[in-house]
Amino acid sequence: MGDEVVLLGYHLSMFVVRVKIALGEKGVKYEYKEEDLLNTKSALLLQMNPVHKKVPVLIHNGKPISESRIILEYIDEVWKDQTPLLPTDPYQKAHARFWVDFFDNKVHEVAKKIWTGKVDELEKEKKELIENLKKIEEVLGEKPYFGGNTFGFLDIAIIPFYKWFSTYEKVGNLKLECPKLVEWGNRCLKRESVSKFLSEEKDVYEFVKMYRKLIGVD
Amino acid sequence: MGDEVVLLGYHLSMFVVRVKIALGEKGVKYEYKEEDLLNTKSALLLQMNPVHKKVPVLIHNGKPISESRIILEYIDEVWKDQTPLLPTDPYQKAHARFWVDFFDNKVHEVAKKIWTGKVDELEKEKKELIENLKKIEEVLGEKPYFGGNTFGFLDIAIIPFYKWFSTYEKVGNLKLECPKLVEWGNRCLKRESVSKFLSEEKDVYEFVKMYRKLIGVD
Repeated sequence: MGDEVVLLGYHLSMFVVRVKIALGEKGVKYEYKEEDLLNTKSALLLQMNPVHKKVPVLIHNGKPISESRIILEYIDEVWKDQTPLLPTDPYQKAHARFWVDFFDNKVHEVAKKIWTGKVDELEKEKKELIENLKKIEEVLGEKPYFGGNTFGFLDIAIIPFYKWFSTYEKVGNLKLECPKLVEWGNRCLKRESVSKFLSEEKDVYEFVKMYRKLIGVD
Repeated sequence: MGDEVVLLGYHLSMFVVRVKIALGEKGVKYEYKEEDLLNTKSALLLQMNPVHKKVPVLIHNGKPISESRIILEYIDEVWKDQTPLLPTDPYQKAHARFWVDFFDNKVHEVAKKIWTGKVDELEKEKKELIENLKKIEEVLGEKPYFGGNTFGFLDIAIIPFYKWFSTYEKVGNLKLECPKLVEWGNRCLKRESVSKFLSEEKDVYEFVKMYRKLIGVD
C-alpha cells in the first residue's frame, strides 16, 4: 500500500501506549517520534494537533488523527482485514465505547486528581476510584478479556493503565481491591503487543514523584 | 423488523435532541418517555442507565444504550440503509468524531460553567467560549453543512445547542461572533427533523433563569 505512518508520542503516556498496542495488533509498521512534553513541544506536534497540542497524534499519509479513542477506531477501520479490535455487533460496539468513556472520565480523571493533588483532601475521590475500578471489574466478570475470548478494543484502552495501579495505591495511600483485574492484566501481558510497550511500575512511580515535586504538591 | 424502540429523555436536553433528530433522519418509529429530571428519576431510567442515571437512553428491543454520541453511532450502524449520518471514509469519520468531542468538552462544558456559575468570575471562560465557537465556525468554513453538502453527524451533534447561543450571550453578558454558524443554524432549521425538536430560545432562557435561582447563583 505504500502507507506512511508516523506516531507522535511520549513514552509514559497511557494514551500513546493504546495506539502502540493497536498498531502492534494490526501489524502496522510506523515511525515513532518521541515528544519532549516537559520542555518543548515539536513544531510537527503543534502543526499536526494545533487544537489540543497533545500526544498521541497518528499521521497517516500526511493526515493527522488525534485523541486516542478516535485513533483506535481509525486504525480498526483502515486496517480492517487484520485482527479486528471492535466487535462487529452494534450493541457490543456501543458497550465497548461506553466503558472506554467511563474509564477515561471516571477512572483516569479521578486517579489523576489524586496523583496530581493534595491527597489528604481527596477522600471522596479515593472512594470513587476504588468503586469505579470495581465497576470495571464487574464488566470483565469471569471472561478472559473484556470482549469475551478475544483481546480487543476495551482491553487495549484499559491495559496501559494497569502498571499505574500500584502508583495510585502508593501515592493515594489507598488499597484497590480488584483481583480479577490483576489476573486479566497478567493475561494481557503475555501478548507481545502489550508487554513490549507497557511502562514499568517503578518508572511510573518515579515519574509521578518527580511530577508532584514539579507542580508543588509534594 | 418488529423493532421496539424507546427513548428516555428530557425535553430541554440538547443531548436528547441529538437522538431525536437522528431517529427522525432515519425514519425510525419510537416511543418517547419524558423524565422528570428535576424531581424524581423513573425506575426505568435507573434500571437502564444505572451507571450515570442520565438521559438520553435509547432502549432497543430491551437493550439500553447511553451517551448521546454513542447512541448516534449505534443508530447509524443499526439502521444503516437509511440516510447515513457518519461519512464512510475513515479519515472524515475521525474528523467528525474529533469535532463532536471538541464541541462537548470545549464549547458545551465551558458554556455550562458560565450559565451555572458566577458570571463575573468567569472572564477566562467567556473568552474561551467565544474563541472555541469561532474554531467550530472555521471547521464549517464555506460549506452548507459540516460534512459538506449533506446534513450529517456533526450537524446533528451541534444543532441542538444553536437555540442556546442567545442564552449564552444574555446570561454571560457576552457577544458571540459567528455569522456563518447562524446561517448554518437557519439552514438546518429548514429540515423537519430539526425544527420539530429544537427548543425555543425563550424556553431555554426561562429554564436557565429558573435553574440559576434553584442552585443559588442568581
